[in-house]
Amino acid sequence: MNRIASLFEINHPIVQGGMVWCSGWRLASAVSNAGGLGLLGAGSMYPEVLREHIRQCKAATTRPFGVNVPLMYPEIETLMQIIVEEGVKIVFTSAGNPKLWTSRLQAEGIKVAHVVSSSRFAHKCEEAGVDAIVAEGFEAGGHNGREETTTMCLIPAVRRATSLPLIAAGGIATGEGIAAVLALGADGVQIGTRFALSKESSAHANFKQLCLNLNEGDTQLLLKTLSPTRLVKSPFADAVKEAEQRGAGVEELRALLGRGRAKKGIFEGNLEEGELEIGQIASLLRQEESVAEILSDLLNGYQRAVEKLRAGVFVC
Amino acid sequence: MNRIASLFEINHPIVQGGMVWCSGWRLASAVSNAGGLGLLGAGSMYPEVLREHIRQCKAATTRPFGVNVPLMYPEIETLMQIIVEEGVKIVFTSAGNPKLWTSRLQAEGIKVAHVVSSSRFAHKCEEAGVDAIVAEGFEAGGHNGREETTTMCLIPAVRRATSLPLIAAGGIATGEGIAAVLALGADGVQIGTRFALSKESSAHANFKQLCLNLNEGDTQLLLKTLSPTRLVKSPFADAVKEAEQRGAGVEELRALLGRGRAKKGIFEGNLEEGELEIGQIASLLRQEESVAEILSDLLNGYQRAVEKLRAGVFVC
Repeated sequence: MNRIASLFEINHPIVQGGMVWCSGWRLASAVSNAGGLGLLGAGSMYPEVLREHIRQCKAATTRPFGVNVPLMYPEIETLMQIIVEEGVKIVFTSAGNPKLWTSRLQAEGIKVAHVVSSSRFAHKCEEAGVDAIVAEGFEAGGHNGREETTTMCLIPAVRRATSLPLIAAGGIATGEGIAAVLALGADGVQIGTRFALSKESSAHANFKQLCLNLNEGDTQLLLKTLSPTRLVKSPFADAVKEAEQRGAGVEELRALLGRGRAKKGIFEGNLEEGELEIGQIASLLRQEESVAEILSDLLNGYQRAVEKLRAGVFVC
Repeated sequence: MNRIASLFEINHPIVQGGMVWCSGWRLASAVSNAGGLGLLGAGSMYPEVLREHIRQCKAATTRPFGVNVPLMYPEIETLMQIIVEEGVKIVFTSAGNPKLWTSRLQAEGIKVAHVVSSSRFAHKCEEAGVDAIVAEGFEAGGHNGREETTTMCLIPAVRRATSLPLIAAGGIATGEGIAAVLALGADGVQIGTRFALSKESSAHANFKQLCLNLNEGDTQLLLKTLSPTRLVKSPFADAVKEAEQRGAGVEELRALLGRGRAKKGIFEGNLEEGELEIGQIASLLRQEESVAEILSDLLNGYQRAVEKLRAGVFVC
């Protein structure tokens, strides 16, 4: 029995990342219905909007689903209250201290996973008593760790640091990628980019089309002095880069970023002024697919990879 | 039959990176004797020094070995002449255009592999007619690609771009890591960091000890405007970083770098003033081992990983 599948009572240990402006009830319920774990991305929802998405998700699937909560969310007490009231049983927290909420949520019968970018933070998760850890590498889209540790290096390090159920994230978009991180010691995966560009994602068509045409090197980690974020190269990203190269301070960068940039880019499809968050692995993706097609392809790719390794190609 | 093992007539498709100041005849012959492919690192050798290392290597092993040649090597005609005269049968080229030397070397019965950091350069390798491609990700030590594509994202991209035998590099130091990149589509691996810190490496004891005590985040990609290079954080690296953050130009950086920095750091063990090149995966390594111990551990780790995947942990 796989530990992640067993923990969350799902068929396949494939978690869909709870991404701002992409992960509403349509995406989350589709992933859960396909046997993975769908997550609502609360980071881009007002509390009452999240309540509505939870209700729609419950209407659309009888399978388990969860909510991703960035811990710097401004009205977090209200948000967590709604999660409890609505009977959500799984919460993924990120961008903050796991000690703040883990035991409070667990006391309500909620399973808690926390996202980290280093084994040092994985230790903190263990102290906080989380049920699972998501370890996310440098290649991931959006907010990212300061140490720039890639998935290849991060997963074995976190695996060594903790015995908790471990979900790998960053650079995984295929079944071959799933086999790779499981070989490195993960128990399951969190996939963001491929689901962000699926039919059920609420991202704008302009954003999806742009991302489905990227080449290697078309994303870059920027805003390192504020909060490192992987962005698609674009007029807005160029402006950030130019400011950073001439040594702009935190205040100037904060002003340049302003408010609502991610909504403008990802949800409204403004490719010039918006903040466009996506992972490096987007360059491997060329078409918008349904979640059901994606799950089926992931399972097939995984089997192909395992067969290849079993065939003993290695030792001759 | 594994394509890399078959191409180079070796037992295991494990190539030891030809690293400056680490990869002399002791390291290369030990790796070849253990069933992998040892490479002499010509980048840090005068032509006649390379000749001596080739002769010593031939005396120390009857197995195939090769030479790594950075194509910006100043006396490259002399160097290649020596390689041909001494009967070396395998050359790995890097840092330059593969069209320059591939067919000339092949005409002498030499197998040629070229190192790339993107699928665009992999296409150029195919046009140049190389026998194999090494694709090296962002997490690798030393000189690195501009696009910052990680091994997790690079290997599937290069696998899609070419049908040539493919060697993955960057972030691989364990058998589990080998299984991971083979799952992603590679046919073999090139391992640098773990061999750089082995007993047979000619790196200075100070350098090895420092690298065997690194934590995640203790290396960083610097010198991006010159030639991106992954360095250990150190007084010299701090000076580079400080210059870069205030927008120093190429000339100033070149002057700061000066000459002989890598020798000073890696070979002479000057940890303050030297340029200390090592991969991110160093943080996983804690002891100096012999090459024979490393090979045995790699093969065991690979088998463990394959067994784990075979056990069907994935679909529950």
